[in-house]
Amino acid sequence: MSPGSQPAKESRRAVTRTLRVKTSRRTELQDITSAVQRVIHEAGVASGVCHLYVPHTTAGITINENADPDVPRDIEAAMDRMVPKDGPYKHFEGNADAHIKATLTGVSQSVQIENGELQLGRWQGIFFCEYDGPRQREVRVRIVRDDVS
Amino acid sequence: MSPGSQPAKESRRAVTRTLRVKTSRRTELQDITSAVQRVIHEAGVASGVCHLYVPHTTAGITINENADPDVPRDIEAAMDRMVPKDGPYKHFEGNADAHIKATLTGVSQSVQIENGELQLGRWQGIFFCEYDGPRQREVRVRIVRDDVS
Amino acid sequence: MSPGSQPAKESRRAVTRTLRVKTSRRTELQDITSAVQRVIHEAGVASGVCHLYVPHTTAGITINENADPDVPRDIEAAMDRMVPKDGPYKHFEGNADAHIKATLTGVSQSVQIENGELQLGRWQGIFFCEYDGPRQREVRVRIVRDDVS
Repeated sequence: MSPGSQPAKESRRAVTRTLRVKTSRRTELQDITSAVQRVIHEAGVASGVCHLYVPHTTAGITINENADPDVPRDIEAAMDRMVPKDGPYKHFEGNADAHIKATLTGVSQSVQIENGELQLGRWQGIFFCEYDGPRQREVRVRIVRDDVS
Repeated sequence: MSPGSQPAKESRRAVTRTLRVKTSRRTELQDITSAVQRVIHEAGVASGVCHLYVPHTTAGITINENADPDVPRDIEAAMDRMVPKDGPYKHFEGNADAHIKATLTGVSQSVQIENGELQLGRWQGIFFCEYDGPRQREVRVRIVRDDVS
Repeated sequence: MSPGSQPAKESRRAVTRTLRVKTSRRTELQDITSAVQRVIHEAGVASGVCHLYVPHTTAGITINENADPDVPRDIEAAMDRMVPKDGPYKHFEGNADAHIKATLTGVSQSVQIENGELQLGRWQGIFFCEYDGPRQREVRVRIVRDDVS
């Protein structure tokens, strides 16, 4: 993943950035935790809510264990078993399963920020969930601070 | 869907509206994007977060492709296959599957707003997910602006 | 569930608390609605958004019916059928299914607050979703008020 963050649109209360994510497999959970944390550090936000949003229809975002890489691999395999690529689908593009997986996963997540750090649990990481890769993708990060006077 | 928005409860930072949604099938994804966008236009909010909430237990809300209507149809069919109506359920009302689908889909979503527009991806639309219709339903929209001085 | 809330870190706009949840079964939906509502009452917040976050990787949070206890039981059973404990998993700890269920459920939810009350639907309750219990768990509650001048 390349962080590739653009100049922020700064307002009094929100900081926004777009992260670039390059995936290499059809179904792939990719850890983007450090790129998200970097946005918060660069913005100098001490306390607030970090809204994460995936503007795609065949991808999602989830928070799960990033200590053992077998965990994201197991999630990828389970998604592919629950929603097979070749089902009785109508959608003509051959990626109906990816749309269904996106809905099961969700495209928005919110994580709290305290003391300038994402308040993730000890074993948690943030994963971009590719379901129709490989592709070039985006994640939109919006930090709404509550430390503004 | 009829927009049927009530007078807003305005405060300094939030605008709230309740949208009415009328569904016509038992399992039905219904596109509510334009009704949500209309709330933002009417409220005159330039920048912020749009919180969407479904106050029901047999329905949900998702964001997915609204260009090809086969995509929502495929999601409906996949949900009905993964969680069959007649499973080994205890709940006496005969709609246990609808409750399970609501949890798999989720009842809250957040979308960012910039320049007075929902920051949806190019192919994304917002769908109310009916799992026990036809019914009269509601979606609560809360816009928290960050362009307030 | 024991509420066990710590002293709040108060700022101008946000109130945060950590709830303690003690689960007693491997897969268990536990109603935490009244503990969340208590945080809002104690904080004296009239209007805003309540962000709920589970800092674990084998648990989640959902909103569903809490009138008939058969509904959470049916959701537990459906999750265990869709994602069996003994699948073809790589993760060595024997709880890969619990990680997958956490992603299907999600770890963050947002609920609106008006007049000092969670704006849940008539039949809705907030459930902590244990997928690898019994354990001692936490839920982080962040109330972002919009009634601050």
